[in-house]
Amino acid sequence: MPELRKDPVIGRWVIIATERAKRPTDFKIKRDPPHGGFCPFCPGNEEKTPPEVLAYRENGTGANGPGWSLRVVPNKFPALMIEGGLQREGEGIYDKMNGVGAHEVIIENPDHAKTLADLTDAQVESVVWAYRDRIVDLRKDARFRYALIFKNHGEAAGASLEHSHSQLIALPIVPRYVSEEIFGAREYFNFKERCIFCDIVRQERGDRRRVVYENDDFITVSPYAPKFPFETWILPKAHQSSFEDGQVREYQNLAKALRITLRKLNAALDRPPYNFIVHTSPLNEKNLPYYHWHVEIMPTLTKVAGFEWGSGFYINPTPPEESADHLHRMEV
Amino acid sequence: MPELRKDPVIGRWVIIATERAKRPTDFKIKRDPPHGGFCPFCPGNEEKTPPEVLAYRENGTGANGPGWSLRVVPNKFPALMIEGGLQREGEGIYDKMNGVGAHEVIIENPDHAKTLADLTDAQVESVVWAYRDRIVDLRKDARFRYALIFKNHGEAAGASLEHSHSQLIALPIVPRYVSEEIFGAREYFNFKERCIFCDIVRQERGDRRRVVYENDDFITVSPYAPKFPFETWILPKAHQSSFEDGQVREYQNLAKALRITLRKLNAALDRPPYNFIVHTSPLNEKNLPYYHWHVEIMPTLTKVAGFEWGSGFYINPTPPEESADHLHRMEV
Repeated sequence: MPELRKDPVIGRWVIIATERAKRPTDFKIKRDPPHGGFCPFCPGNEEKTPPEVLAYRENGTGANGPGWSLRVVPNKFPALMIEGGLQREGEGIYDKMNGVGAHEVIIENPDHAKTLADLTDAQVESVVWAYRDRIVDLRKDARFRYALIFKNHGEAAGASLEHSHSQLIALPIVPRYVSEEIFGAREYFNFKERCIFCDIVRQERGDRRRVVYENDDFITVSPYAPKFPFETWILPKAHQSSFEDGQVREYQNLAKALRITLRKLNAALDRPPYNFIVHTSPLNEKNLPYYHWHVEIMPTLTKVAGFEWGSGFYINPTPPEESADHLHRMEV
Repeated sequence: MPELRKDPVIGRWVIIATERAKRPTDFKIKRDPPHGGFCPFCPGNEEKTPPEVLAYRENGTGANGPGWSLRVVPNKFPALMIEGGLQREGEGIYDKMNGVGAHEVIIENPDHAKTLADLTDAQVESVVWAYRDRIVDLRKDARFRYALIFKNHGEAAGASLEHSHSQLIALPIVPRYVSEEIFGAREYFNFKERCIFCDIVRQERGDRRRVVYENDDFITVSPYAPKFPFETWILPKAHQSSFEDGQVREYQNLAKALRITLRKLNAALDRPPYNFIVHTSPLNEKNLPYYHWHVEIMPTLTKVAGFEWGSGFYINPTPPEESADHLHRMEV
């Protein structure tokens, strides 16, 4: 069972993921990972993953066989385990609990060679529907307080398998960064009686210098204070706190915005590795007036080093007005 | 002038470092950086750096020429500028100020081929004295509230030059992570009337499972809730809040602990890239009963990816009891 341990000073929880345990000697070879020809996410290899929890498939095809266009499976090497209770306990001055949670993989399409940016609008739309369907299902489990959806693309961004996929981790606590973001947004709301993200959307739409792309429901911007060069956010224009409570038309336009934004990043930066994260409200906290879900995309272009680890400050050599201008011009 | 910009939601400051400005096209080639033969930190090339602010040198040798055993110079491409005031101002809903601060490089020894772990105890001791001397000097400047000392070793850990060096960044504000650590330590002190780091030292010395090394004044441990595999901390055994207020004997024993710890990491992990950070109290906050300076060393073995960026949670596949046991056994 993985263990959650709490740093006794700053209170950050860490997952000691024993199911993925690495012996010290594993790190010596880690720097040049092997790439075999076998892919557990390709059609025909369905038995190499745990049984699917969701699939979009052709009529008449059976679970855990070919015929799917999208497939969601539990992670074979999960950071957290789905069974058990939290069992909080102390260890002298330290605190720990069981690593309970869900860790799922969204295999975005059957074609090994296609990245998310290479898919059609309709295919990207089915990916965002899968995110929604899984959240709607997982929020029925009362142990879970947050569902984090993210994607690591490319080895430098932490992807260990090449076949395009996203991940979902459902957690028994609201993670630190999410709490901080919600806390900040609530403080602003208490002071102004307005959603800060709505204010950001309004100011960016007026200013235009940091706008990358816009459609009826979504706007893509370079944020005012980006941690990294070419960090890019996609925000719904209308106020909405939960990703999973959108309208059909909104998921269509989100898919369009996501696909175009990724293609612009590909064109500007020669298909960079990247991470993206869906920032949304905690499970079962509905219709918050002060929070506004959105997607943050971070290409992996610079290295996080001692200064950032020591300070929580980020040094970004590229002003967002420059990256937005560059991305805006890219024809995709 | 670099600009400090504040994320309007979570309140994190970012340095938009215009002096190091990167055009979008720079990132396309960034992934395979060139390694020329020329090194601006080698003896004979002193005119390629800004004039030194401190040097330990042979009697009779002049500033900014050869004859030094250690040299501190301003960073040629500083993240912050030494001149000017903060000039806080708004930009609609956003906040910014000037990027005022000092950014210095500590060139640890003249020999290009020697890393910090390859130096003698006496040489490592002169490095820790240089850290101390620079802090003592910079704390006279009333604009600075914090001096962060850190080291990036190896390209994967963010070092852009190979010749072994550390860095110091003096900041006009206390950075976020430092405030969080001090806040956590103060909360504990308020509750227990004891320093949490003193409690950590006491528990680890009794428990032994996470102890890597110990001498009269310092203890090296794998922390209970490490973010990364083989994360390793060096703590003074006696309570002390400021790095720069030590006794001569303590700097000797710190040098010994640092050198042995780095050599053990080298032996266990085949000379890994790493970052280390000196965690110390803000400038001119003296003799805090609740804070305890220490060094945190983080080998670069795993990649920070979407989950960590989205949650502030870390997934660590190596229990600290295992890494401590392994490091403890290493003969160096």
